[in-house]
Amino acid sequence: MKIVCIGSGNVATHMAKAFTENEADIIQVWSKDPANAATLAFETGAQAISDLKEINLNADLYLIAVKDDAITKITRFLKGVNGLVVHTSGATEMEVLSGIKNHGVFYPLQTFSKAEPIDFIHVPLCLEANTEENMSLLQLAAMKLSPLIYEVNSEKRKILHLAGVFACNFVNHMYRLSQQIVEKQGLDFEILRPLIMETALKAQNALPADVQTGPAARNDRQTILKHEELLQKTPHLQEIYRILSDSIKKTR
Amino acid sequence: MKIVCIGSGNVATHMAKAFTENEADIIQVWSKDPANAATLAFETGAQAISDLKEINLNADLYLIAVKDDAITKITRFLKGVNGLVVHTSGATEMEVLSGIKNHGVFYPLQTFSKAEPIDFIHVPLCLEANTEENMSLLQLAAMKLSPLIYEVNSEKRKILHLAGVFACNFVNHMYRLSQQIVEKQGLDFEILRPLIMETALKAQNALPADVQTGPAARNDRQTILKHEELLQKTPHLQEIYRILSDSIKKTR
Repeated sequence: MKIVCIGSGNVATHMAKAFTENEADIIQVWSKDPANAATLAFETGAQAISDLKEINLNADLYLIAVKDDAITKITRFLKGVNGLVVHTSGATEMEVLSGIKNHGVFYPLQTFSKAEPIDFIHVPLCLEANTEENMSLLQLAAMKLSPLIYEVNSEKRKILHLAGVFACNFVNHMYRLSQQIVEKQGLDFEILRPLIMETALKAQNALPADVQTGPAARNDRQTILKHEELLQKTPHLQEIYRILSDSIKKTR
Repeated sequence: MKIVCIGSGNVATHMAKAFTENEADIIQVWSKDPANAATLAFETGAQAISDLKEINLNADLYLIAVKDDAITKITRFLKGVNGLVVHTSGATEMEVLSGIKNHGVFYPLQTFSKAEPIDFIHVPLCLEANTEENMSLLQLAAMKLSPLIYEVNSEKRKILHLAGVFACNFVNHMYRLSQQIVEKQGLDFEILRPLIMETALKAQNALPADVQTGPAARNDRQTILKHEELLQKTPHLQEIYRILSDSIKKTR
């Protein structure tokens, strides 16, 4: 399978590397920044390009992994290809690729950091394609990377992307606020790490709705008041404490 | 080391079992409910009691693991003991035990579920004691269970307890809201689990402040607006989305 990788950010980098390691050929890497294209191309044994007009028209799969608002501009240069063109965005409809004969979506529901390696067997891949044949091809590509394959239409993918903000971005923000709270008192964030790990592990086996704990869940007003008092000098944290405690009570 | 366990809830159960498995003797288990006392006593080879007057006065360590507001009542029955009396509460000052000669705190900063076993090597133990001698004894006991031992005074322990609400209870609530969002659209929560795991793993190696991602972190207004629109029929979730996105922007 010959693949052209369009983009050189976190998602592009992790995907291109994973494909290279799993019997697929990255033949080109495009980035508007030649140095970034060169870096990823070097790591995957591909050709680096920074002009969209140089895109090889005979690949099997074109992976568009760029910022959401850059996708449309890129599609203009892919109108003539026969291969399957997919974007990798959670929040973008498949529709934006409708000017291309064979198109679809290849959305990895995972958080990527450029520095940290990720094992794709833990990356759910959400697929969508404009024909059954293209879906089959996309599944073949996906199976090279992960056993976690889901067919998800554009509407449901948007919901997953939104849910991911709660399950990942907001969760990390909670970690961050807890970091602020302990560091302000000269305590090391390290002491909270086992608790963070255990909380995530619990959600692997149980449904979060069934394992909610803490002062708000048991309506322990004494403790809630004590905590609000401790947050008096940081009204911003106090407000979040109140709103989330109320939300927990409402969701009981 | 002879230990009396006062309480039979989650914390009492996990601690008593862990001590039994690590060369300490649970000699008695007290619970106001005789059946609960009997269950935990059976599992730890201890004597079950449900009358505080029957507490053995010659143990080395008394672990009070009951609801916060029941601690004071229990201390009345422990005035005569020579051993070290500790409570296990994050939100309660050591002071409440000041009527007892040898006293301290043994606070596990972790989330416990009655059904799930927990390996104590992942449980940070926060210790406080009224004398250096008692601290040494408490450290000896703690080392039987975990390598994660911290000396933490009452003021800092309260801060840790508060931070734990953010890092565990609020985090689980975020998981729960993401569960609501996907289930409403007929999607399985399972698909979010790898993302949850990876987010927690990231916080094991990096500081959360350094790895915040998502639309609010990159100030991607387009996506934020789309998400708020998707939440239009659930104003409660929409409000939380807004407040946390604003908070992420402020914390940049």
